[in-house]
Amino acid sequence: MKKISILGASGSIGTQALEVIRNNPNEFKLISVSVGKNIQRLKNIIDEFSPELVSVSEASDAKIIAEAFPDISVEYGGAGLHAVACDDSDMLLTAVMGSVGLSPTLAAVEKGKDIALANKETLVAAGDIVMSRAREKNVNIIPVDSEHSAIFQCLRGESLKEVSKIILTASGGSFRDLSRHELKDVTREQALAHPNWAMGEKITIDSATMMNKGLEVIEAKWLFDLDVDQITTILHRESTIHSMVEFVDNSIMAQMGNSDMKTAIQFAFSHPERLPMHNPMDFSQLSTLNFKQMDYERFRLLDLSYQALRTGGTMPAVMNAANEFAVSEFLKGSISFLDIEKIVESRMDAHQVVANPDLETILHYDKLYKSDMR
Amino acid sequence: MKKISILGASGSIGTQALEVIRNNPNEFKLISVSVGKNIQRLKNIIDEFSPELVSVSEASDAKIIAEAFPDISVEYGGAGLHAVACDDSDMLLTAVMGSVGLSPTLAAVEKGKDIALANKETLVAAGDIVMSRAREKNVNIIPVDSEHSAIFQCLRGESLKEVSKIILTASGGSFRDLSRHELKDVTREQALAHPNWAMGEKITIDSATMMNKGLEVIEAKWLFDLDVDQITTILHRESTIHSMVEFVDNSIMAQMGNSDMKTAIQFAFSHPERLPMHNPMDFSQLSTLNFKQMDYERFRLLDLSYQALRTGGTMPAVMNAANEFAVSEFLKGSISFLDIEKIVESRMDAHQVVANPDLETILHYDKLYKSDMR
Repeated sequence: MKKISILGASGSIGTQALEVIRNNPNEFKLISVSVGKNIQRLKNIIDEFSPELVSVSEASDAKIIAEAFPDISVEYGGAGLHAVACDDSDMLLTAVMGSVGLSPTLAAVEKGKDIALANKETLVAAGDIVMSRAREKNVNIIPVDSEHSAIFQCLRGESLKEVSKIILTASGGSFRDLSRHELKDVTREQALAHPNWAMGEKITIDSATMMNKGLEVIEAKWLFDLDVDQITTILHRESTIHSMVEFVDNSIMAQMGNSDMKTAIQFAFSHPERLPMHNPMDFSQLSTLNFKQMDYERFRLLDLSYQALRTGGTMPAVMNAANEFAVSEFLKGSISFLDIEKIVESRMDAHQVVANPDLETILHYDKLYKSDMR
Repeated sequence: MKKISILGASGSIGTQALEVIRNNPNEFKLISVSVGKNIQRLKNIIDEFSPELVSVSEASDAKIIAEAFPDISVEYGGAGLHAVACDDSDMLLTAVMGSVGLSPTLAAVEKGKDIALANKETLVAAGDIVMSRAREKNVNIIPVDSEHSAIFQCLRGESLKEVSKIILTASGGSFRDLSRHELKDVTREQALAHPNWAMGEKITIDSATMMNKGLEVIEAKWLFDLDVDQITTILHRESTIHSMVEFVDNSIMAQMGNSDMKTAIQFAFSHPERLPMHNPMDFSQLSTLNFKQMDYERFRLLDLSYQALRTGGTMPAVMNAANEFAVSEFLKGSISFLDIEKIVESRMDAHQVVANPDLETILHYDKLYKSDMR
């Protein structure tokens, strides 16, 4: 029985993770969860899974939960996330969105707990620090992103030194069939209509801007200890092939599946085993898979991600923070879609890079570049 | 330095295997080879690779070679194949076509030598016997067929008991766009024009009839210890995905590459390592991969292969022998294309199956059903 904790249990990944736990009651036990403000969802989770510890964003919500469930520990805010991260479970699923996942994930690593990582910002902002500590603590960091789970599976039984490159597939997001010119007037609602995947709002916008693929490039660098030049991307509109690895002998391994995160989540939980799941991919439906070279001029934020990764130091954290700010402004309706990349680029241009930053420095710049900077 | 012997060095696989050895002089050393009647090719091989032992089909050719190269051992016929199989190399590549590969391959297994298997008829005719002996002798049988090499690679680091099914891809061969009605008048030359792969004549005809995929289904059963129901096929005209494995958690692993056997051959030689090779698959050329459900009525011999596998005993050997006879008649111009399946089916219908046959029984029926049976 593997004991699991979840940061971000009410989001899209969190909900699917709970489904995996529900479907495998003899394999997994939920120990603790955090949610943001979705108190009703949390009550349902407590009723169904009886966790020992829960955390919410606000003190007032914590009070409500504590009164309704006097037998469990209730925490809130940053300390609450740390409490969930540092409980006595075997594995932490980090499924919160944004750089808020970084500190608690690192705390869980320090405690020697394996990580199922669905939060790419953790490695984008502080990949060097997190992976170094994970190696020192002998902690497994198992990716839950479909692309990185695919790469992770393609590397099973293989030697990293025999990898020639990885190929991250990209659906292209909501606006893949529009030219840059046509992006000028797109709306929030159009941006949120992803053609393949049902996901949270932030990641859906990141898919439309291709920033999501850029964050994945940086995440892949750290997860798999690759050179920047070994990380490539390709447009693949069906999202059937989740990603590929090319080896030195020209053999290419690819992982395929449904556009559904449950296989990746369950595999992270069950690793190194695979557990049965239903709804296999229906091969009678497999007809055509399309691929197209990535267009780095069309997808400016992907190009900026490579630049940030090459620059290193605080630059990826700054790029990520600027993007979190810009996406949140776009979701509020304050800026246009193309303003997102303008804001990210201008904040990156203005930033004086700090090489080899410590965690405090990264968190400082993360907070600064996520603010309106006025 | 791994010492390699090759049965069938002048054929398509043999020639590519020699290229792999040529390109990796510090890794592989050619110890012995057999060829059929291509004496000039053999002379070139001897000049370039200086093997210790060579074998040819005919005594008269052996005499010519022995006079030209007095310092090497020269053998011929069935005994010659056995001599090559039983030399002191580390690995035997069985690249002869047809059931003639069976006895020498089994002899090499008995000697404890690893096998790179490019001859599917060996496992089709006597899979149970060969794999049992290989397990007892702790011999690795590494497939060189692109499909089985793909499956073998997809299974690296995985557990066989977590496999739900394998999916063998089929290009469809030379006549994939023709209806059964249109097959009536096709010629030998049309049948020999494979759209994707440059291969020997027998296997090219087997691709056109889909018997090749049927032989692969049976080979896969024995190589990977699968149930018949776990082995499926799919039409994939580009041959880019060489085959796939679906696991119990719905994750599908696929292996991809060029339509070129050198990666599979080199991987069999270098296993468990991968060695560098040039000409990677050019991803800028990757555009569309097409898949279509297999049509078992259209491809009658594939359906018969599943029947033979389910029947078991001597039936797969008989089917294979009948096919070898029929293809050879077609290549001689004696029968029409659709006669191939008629002959195979009528010989299977007439055969009284022997359950759990020994090698002698298999070889008896192989010889009988490969003859004109008059």
